[in-house]
Amino acid sequence: MSTSKKTAIVLSGCGVFDGAEIHEATFTMYAVMKLGGTYDVYAPDIAQYHVINHLSGDVVPETRNVLVESARISRGKIQNISNLDMRYYDALMFPGGFGVAKNLSNLAFRGADCSVNSDVERVIRQAVTLKKPIGALCISPAMVSRVVTGAEVTVGQDEYTAQQITKMGGKHTNTNHGEVVIDKKFKLATTPCYMLEANILNIADGAMNVTEAVFSMIE
Amino acid sequence: MSTSKKTAIVLSGCGVFDGAEIHEATFTMYAVMKLGGTYDVYAPDIAQYHVINHLSGDVVPETRNVLVESARISRGKIQNISNLDMRYYDALMFPGGFGVAKNLSNLAFRGADCSVNSDVERVIRQAVTLKKPIGALCISPAMVSRVVTGAEVTVGQDEYTAQQITKMGGKHTNTNHGEVVIDKKFKLATTPCYMLEANILNIADGAMNVTEAVFSMIE
Repeated sequence: MSTSKKTAIVLSGCGVFDGAEIHEATFTMYAVMKLGGTYDVYAPDIAQYHVINHLSGDVVPETRNVLVESARISRGKIQNISNLDMRYYDALMFPGGFGVAKNLSNLAFRGADCSVNSDVERVIRQAVTLKKPIGALCISPAMVSRVVTGAEVTVGQDEYTAQQITKMGGKHTNTNHGEVVIDKKFKLATTPCYMLEANILNIADGAMNVTEAVFSMIE
Repeated sequence: MSTSKKTAIVLSGCGVFDGAEIHEATFTMYAVMKLGGTYDVYAPDIAQYHVINHLSGDVVPETRNVLVESARISRGKIQNISNLDMRYYDALMFPGGFGVAKNLSNLAFRGADCSVNSDVERVIRQAVTLKKPIGALCISPAMVSRVVTGAEVTVGQDEYTAQQITKMGGKHTNTNHGEVVIDKKFKLATTPCYMLEANILNIADGAMNVTEAVFSMIE
C-alpha cells in the first residue's frame, strides 16, 4: 500500500433527498483520515436539480447551488470539480445521496439512459486511465457504471437499480450492510450504505470498509 | 449505568456558519447508537437568524427554517422541540455550530447578556430538574451555562467565550481535543470539538467521549 493516500471526495449538495447524503459524506471524510489519508472536497458549480424540504418531502420553489450547499458539509473548504485533476490524487470517492442521481447525473429520471455531468465523467475516466482507485457509496456505483462500461459494482439489493446497471453493461452483485464489491480490473470499490434500510452504524462501517478497499488498490 | 439511554439531540440548522455543525451532529448521533443508546432529533420551528453562503462566507438574502434545515442531517426524521418532554428521555445533547449561538440563542451577538430560545431553555431546565444528564459540544456549553447558573463547562481555549461564561456565573476550564469537563452537580458533560482548531478525527473523539460521560451519569 502506498504511503500517500491523497483522496478527492466529490459531493453533490447537502441533504439526502436533493444532495449528498450527509452521514455518508461525513464518514467518508472520517474514514480517509482515520486510515492515514488526506482529502480535498470537490463539487460541480451548477444549480441543484431541485430543492426538497427534508421535513415535508415536498419540492419547494427555491434554487440552490451544488457547490455552495456542498460547502456546508466541508465547512467551506471545497473546490469546483472543474479544477480536479486526478494526476494529483491517489484515489477518488463518491458518497451517495439523491444528489448523485439528480445533480451529478440524471440517473434518477432516465435510469440506464442517463448522462453524467461532464466534469464528473471526466474525473472518473481520468482515474480509471491513471489506475487510481475509485470508491463509491450508496447510489454512486450506478453512476460510475454509466461511465465505466463493464464495471462490477453493488448498490445493495435494489432490483430496479441493479437492472439499470445491467442495462448499462455493468455487473451487479447483491450485498448486505458494510459489504464491499471490488472490481480489480477498473479498481472500483462499492458499498450499499443507505441504499439498504440502514442505521448510522451501518454507514460508518460501509464508509470505512470501502475506503480500506480503495486504499488497498493504490499503487 | 442504566440500560436505557434514550437521547434527545437538539439541532440548530444545517451547516457550521448559520446552523448545526454537520460533523458534530453526525458523530453525536453515531456515538449515541455505538454506545447502545437510541436517539430522536429535535429542532425549533423558527426562521434561521440568517443564511450564509458556506463557500463565500457572505450573508445571502434567503430565509431558511431551522427545523426544516436540521431535517437534512436527520434524513427527515425530526420533531419540533416544542414537543420535547425530557420525562421520556434519559439524556439531552447539543451538538455545536453557529446555529447554537444565532438560532437557539443570541449568544453570538449579545455574549453574556444573551437569551435562549424558550423551548431550548425549558428542556435544559427540565433535564436538570429531572437529573437527566446534558451533553454539549463546541459552543453549546456557553448556551447551557446561560440557563444553568453556576455550570462548570469547557469550550476549549477561547478566551472571549470563557469570559462570557464567567460573567454568566459559570466556571470555565480550558481543555484540548477530545477532553471532557464533567459538572456532577448539574450532570453536564462538555467538550470543545470545533471551538478548537480541529480535524474530523478530533470531532469523532470528542463526540464519543462526551457521550460516554453523559451515559455514565444516567441514573
